[in-house]
Amino acid sequence: MGSKRTDRRGFLKGGAALAGGLTLGAVEPAAAQTPASGASGAMIKGSKELIAYGDRSRFVTSVRIPHGGRPSPDAFGLVFHVATPLQDLVGVITPSSLHYTATTRGSFIPDIDPREHRLMIHGMVDRPLIFTLEDLKRLPSVTRLHFIECAGNRSTPRAKTVQESHGLTSCAEWTGVLLSTLLKEAGVKGGASWFVAEGAEEVKGASSMPIAKAMDDCLVCYGMNGEAVRPQQGFPLRLMVPGFEGIFSTKYLRRIKLVDRYYMNYNDYGHLREDAKDAALGYQWGPKSVITFPSAGQQLPGRGFYEISGLAWSGGGAVRRVEISTDGGKKWKDAEIRGTAYRMAHTRFASQWNWDGTETELLSRCTDELGQVQPTRAQAAKFFNVPLDPSFNVPGLDNIIQPWRVASDGTVHNGHA
Amino acid sequence: MGSKRTDRRGFLKGGAALAGGLTLGAVEPAAAQTPASGASGAMIKGSKELIAYGDRSRFVTSVRIPHGGRPSPDAFGLVFHVATPLQDLVGVITPSSLHYTATTRGSFIPDIDPREHRLMIHGMVDRPLIFTLEDLKRLPSVTRLHFIECAGNRSTPRAKTVQESHGLTSCAEWTGVLLSTLLKEAGVKGGASWFVAEGAEEVKGASSMPIAKAMDDCLVCYGMNGEAVRPQQGFPLRLMVPGFEGIFSTKYLRRIKLVDRYYMNYNDYGHLREDAKDAALGYQWGPKSVITFPSAGQQLPGRGFYEISGLAWSGGGAVRRVEISTDGGKKWKDAEIRGTAYRMAHTRFASQWNWDGTETELLSRCTDELGQVQPTRAQAAKFFNVPLDPSFNVPGLDNIIQPWRVASDGTVHNGHA
Repeated sequence: MGSKRTDRRGFLKGGAALAGGLTLGAVEPAAAQTPASGASGAMIKGSKELIAYGDRSRFVTSVRIPHGGRPSPDAFGLVFHVATPLQDLVGVITPSSLHYTATTRGSFIPDIDPREHRLMIHGMVDRPLIFTLEDLKRLPSVTRLHFIECAGNRSTPRAKTVQESHGLTSCAEWTGVLLSTLLKEAGVKGGASWFVAEGAEEVKGASSMPIAKAMDDCLVCYGMNGEAVRPQQGFPLRLMVPGFEGIFSTKYLRRIKLVDRYYMNYNDYGHLREDAKDAALGYQWGPKSVITFPSAGQQLPGRGFYEISGLAWSGGGAVRRVEISTDGGKKWKDAEIRGTAYRMAHTRFASQWNWDGTETELLSRCTDELGQVQPTRAQAAKFFNVPLDPSFNVPGLDNIIQPWRVASDGTVHNGHA
Repeated sequence: MGSKRTDRRGFLKGGAALAGGLTLGAVEPAAAQTPASGASGAMIKGSKELIAYGDRSRFVTSVRIPHGGRPSPDAFGLVFHVATPLQDLVGVITPSSLHYTATTRGSFIPDIDPREHRLMIHGMVDRPLIFTLEDLKRLPSVTRLHFIECAGNRSTPRAKTVQESHGLTSCAEWTGVLLSTLLKEAGVKGGASWFVAEGAEEVKGASSMPIAKAMDDCLVCYGMNGEAVRPQQGFPLRLMVPGFEGIFSTKYLRRIKLVDRYYMNYNDYGHLREDAKDAALGYQWGPKSVITFPSAGQQLPGRGFYEISGLAWSGGGAVRRVEISTDGGKKWKDAEIRGTAYRMAHTRFASQWNWDGTETELLSRCTDELGQVQPTRAQAAKFFNVPLDPSFNVPGLDNIIQPWRVASDGTVHNGHA
């Protein structure tokens, strides 16, 4: 107890921490009446627009960036993959304006009038049904925190920031009707074992998923972070398929068809498997985590106390444990889980670290409620029986451990080589 | 079990619900290939701005409104109280752009450069300290869901919508450093029993609060809903004082002074009490709830199934129970709590209701973890020993039960008379 208390209270007091750590000044009472405020008399004048719908500070300039160096929008005005600035975010909610977005290839974002939009449930059901938005909003709703993550989210040696290596995942509070509620109303016929979800965008993005997932935890969402789902996230309706790779969370949802077998659809180009069972199992994200501070591209001002902070999640359920190493993987200790670890949701972890100013490597490792443990890049290469070199990419969903190398000058770099 | 199953599956099947309720069409398989999508080929073209920072649909027009009919901005360009459109929101997160805002009287919003901003902790401490934003972000952080509510949030007969009666409360995910962490570093001197928190705006809004509250759960916040605190919420630093009336959650926080007694400050104009102890106790919100759907100004399309939905909260801790009455208070039944009921946070409740088309009154009643029960307007008038007439306003913090009257034509009105 005594030593723990010392640990917790020593951020600024310890000689070591004060000497090389925080830039704190002990001020005289006489100076007390005039701390700098940064305000300098400048004011933001109230306007009708700002009263109706507020905006962020002009000093806050964090933005999403196109993923993988692809032009976005490209020559045709198309938007492909745009990554969330995880390095700038706190807590577990991704602001809707910064939520990653990935557009079905070759498609603009449809400009949908919600009064005209319909969701049809048909195929192997007793009673095909068509719902308006107003119909859906009258039904029992649920609100859940869930991450979405694109299959293209890859921790490669090329990535120069956590936004580049991990920015194709975000987390929001989703509100809607359980898909199982709608399917029970329609009546699922015996023999129905898969369903196809289709969006209203130009290319009619569609995916096949097992009906067991539909009856478990899929949501037909009209709300996101308290307000309507944003157009880049599928306004007015998005199917949320918790824990599966992002493309299954069908945007602009307009049709769900119950079928008796796996059907190949437009969005399934990445999911071709000889065995349908294998295809279904391959959809789900494994346990994953990444340190967002300190992360590549950031600069530590000097030795001393820091809070290491990051996000952990799993397609297999809730995060049970996150471990941190500050010495390249020799020793590990449990990070603190901040707040509630929800199923298939980003979970904030943190750990206290006193940096002595020497070069080192920071790692985080997630274990989920199923007991699955996040692997290293070397373990993944060994598992797939391929050479561990800079060209190695994890086949399928990449959930490998991300090392961040802290140089003695305080710069932080991608530790993959 | 059998009857419960029937209840849960009967939204659309029951003759009564189908006859007067949801506008559902059982479609032929032949029509299945062409459900209306509302898209009509119109597209939102990708732009650099939308990629960097997304926006909501042009069909979503929900906005904040000036409170109490006051011009906002007024002739001087000042913004006073602006209310959240609770009737349009789902879940428990208020989008930051729609979070209610109340400006200290006579003050513009300061345009603060966060690099120049400082927080000073001084007065009865062993070691006065000045923190930059970067200093604070290196310290152990917490993330918590908390409501804020303005003392001016009043359920009066005049209110024509829930936005007018209850829109001066909102809820967000707040991230920052516990004030107790900072005070322990500064060292609290014996005899210090109150603290004064001061903001950097023009009028230097300041409030006195008991030190017990500081050491309990106050947060010095730099984050809100995942990103930086918004200017209308106190960018770059806001003191979060969970459960107390909103004015104590000091915006543009620049100074905390520890003192040995209650000091009268600019923001204390509403808190004059003979007895300092009474003043301190009067700060905290009681248990409160309101139905957001159906609520005044909304229109039910006809008889049939609806999900009644609303928000409950308390300054005294977590919501333990919410009861609903659909017959003007004769019978009550427990509503379902959706998600986790956090301490001093909006909690979403819901209840299933089959409206028979006759005039009635809907009520909700919150009980918090302390066992405190939300009173009716009549109970409040009796408690304060004043006549129950349209001019009656609850002195201090108003947490009375809000009745919504549903007319036989489906229009909904304020039930206070």
